[in-house]
Amino acid sequence: MTNVAVIGATTWGTTIGRVLSKKGIQVNILTKTEDRIKELTEEQKRLRLSDSSLGTILFTNNCETALHTAELVILAVPAQTVRENVTQIKDHISDNMVLVSLAKGLEADTCKRMSEVIDEEIDAIGYKQICVLSGPNLSMEINRNLPATSVLAAVDANIAEKTKTALNTPNFTVFTSNDVVGVELCGALKNVIALGAGMIDGLGLGNNAKAAFITLGWEEVISLGIALGAEPPTFFGLAGLGDLITTCAGPQSRNHYVGHEVASGRSMVEVRASMSNVAEGIDTTMAAHHLASRLGVNVPIITMIYRILFESLPAIEIISWFNKGLKSELAA
Amino acid sequence: MTNVAVIGATTWGTTIGRVLSKKGIQVNILTKTEDRIKELTEEQKRLRLSDSSLGTILFTNNCETALHTAELVILAVPAQTVRENVTQIKDHISDNMVLVSLAKGLEADTCKRMSEVIDEEIDAIGYKQICVLSGPNLSMEINRNLPATSVLAAVDANIAEKTKTALNTPNFTVFTSNDVVGVELCGALKNVIALGAGMIDGLGLGNNAKAAFITLGWEEVISLGIALGAEPPTFFGLAGLGDLITTCAGPQSRNHYVGHEVASGRSMVEVRASMSNVAEGIDTTMAAHHLASRLGVNVPIITMIYRILFESLPAIEIISWFNKGLKSELAA
Repeated sequence: MTNVAVIGATTWGTTIGRVLSKKGIQVNILTKTEDRIKELTEEQKRLRLSDSSLGTILFTNNCETALHTAELVILAVPAQTVRENVTQIKDHISDNMVLVSLAKGLEADTCKRMSEVIDEEIDAIGYKQICVLSGPNLSMEINRNLPATSVLAAVDANIAEKTKTALNTPNFTVFTSNDVVGVELCGALKNVIALGAGMIDGLGLGNNAKAAFITLGWEEVISLGIALGAEPPTFFGLAGLGDLITTCAGPQSRNHYVGHEVASGRSMVEVRASMSNVAEGIDTTMAAHHLASRLGVNVPIITMIYRILFESLPAIEIISWFNKGLKSELAA
Repeated sequence: MTNVAVIGATTWGTTIGRVLSKKGIQVNILTKTEDRIKELTEEQKRLRLSDSSLGTILFTNNCETALHTAELVILAVPAQTVRENVTQIKDHISDNMVLVSLAKGLEADTCKRMSEVIDEEIDAIGYKQICVLSGPNLSMEINRNLPATSVLAAVDANIAEKTKTALNTPNFTVFTSNDVVGVELCGALKNVIALGAGMIDGLGLGNNAKAAFITLGWEEVISLGIALGAEPPTFFGLAGLGDLITTCAGPQSRNHYVGHEVASGRSMVEVRASMSNVAEGIDTTMAAHHLASRLGVNVPIITMIYRILFESLPAIEIISWFNKGLKSELAA
């Protein structure tokens, strides 16, 4: 592939754009305003002065300009805006294009995965042309050329292979999977657990408690994922365990940050309003809670995170859970 | 149970002793020298001044005194000294006692698990009376009364249940398992992966690389574990994933520290000599490497850690592995 369009000049979107520009791929990034185009174009010029491997990137707010030559379209907007963004670009999508979804979240209103949302809104291409990329991918590290891995999932093995090859670089190693549902759920639901891990850190409960919480929380995610059609091994691979470890580790994750701040006494609404970037885990916690209720999957940890975020349950209740909830699980 | 003997006044041994002393259990801890007995007795007095929940502990270097009333015997010595220590106490073990092994390592010479070593040396009790305790248990946090979980494994469900009840406290929640092999291998082999995670941190490769390394390393551990008779779900529970996350997180783990220092240019022998505590992962890496060779299990990550520790492979080869080894795995 020689032409790629990235929809959304988010941190991750521009990072992927830069990675691809190093391979000589023509990258067009669609963004909103003239100011942002100017700012990003100048930033890219500056970065090329210190890293000559970077190529040029065309930043534009014109859908036609961004998309008319694209073979691959990478959707890099926040989960809750995917439907709206897809609606805006859909007339420029042709049947030979492949779409890659980067957003790690579920749609709050519908509880749907991103590939489902995209498939509902775009008629020009079929579900098998919609891929998902997810893994332990802190942008800051990828921008520094540090090694990273990721998983590209698609139901069609040929499309997965072709798209993997397009994304692969010496420092960014992409594996393939045919479990689109699993890879998407891993990326979305690990953010819920990261919120909880941030709460544990905010409460100062230590690494023993945090590891127990992450492990038991991930067991709930797997139960929910299986009920939704995901394949269990996906949760223990790079898109699952790998991303979980990175996201729960600490403050580099926005979701961990939100959990930490909420546990330190700030309201979720206030923390959210203070952030320039989106913490996908908040809306995804709502979706996960609804999905679990609908499917009858028992998820006490996810429910606790939901109640802390949306029902003013004090985060300190996590301590009671360790002392009482866990014991009752033992007795059950 | 009202009488417990702890063999070895190691950090973890005294920590468990203190936890049990809070329940009114008479705890006798066997240690080596008169000096150490005095030091530990005074430390316990000091601790009781600030934490009135702590009970008294009898420190002794007399096997008969330590063991004659014990219903439960907790072996808290380093893995490579378990055989020798068991030999010294075996004449004081009677057939109504239950043994709990805490050491998270494999015997270097024989590649055997601790419960196998104990079973070989003690005739008075059967294998079903030998339990294993393993989980995300940083002593420092448990001493601060922070919540922690652990897994007690025994082949006999009644013994597991009885022993769990003895160990359980409000802040220390113990789950049971019948997968002795799996729980032991998790505790031992996560130290090998923690050595590697420390190397990644020492090389400054970032959290993306570290998470990928841990995830793919753990896949190797699972393959090796299954070949040795462990049950796969154990590796994703508290004794598996939980302990893995805690141990790989950072410098609180001795094994992570050794990996970090070796990757920073010091020799393994020098680092080892400079430490007052034992990093179990070093000898266990040797055992894991031999076991994998013997059983024909493909473990490129474990082999790389082995070669860095024992064959002077430069730790920086981990970077080549990310750039070449991983790609060849993809092609395979």
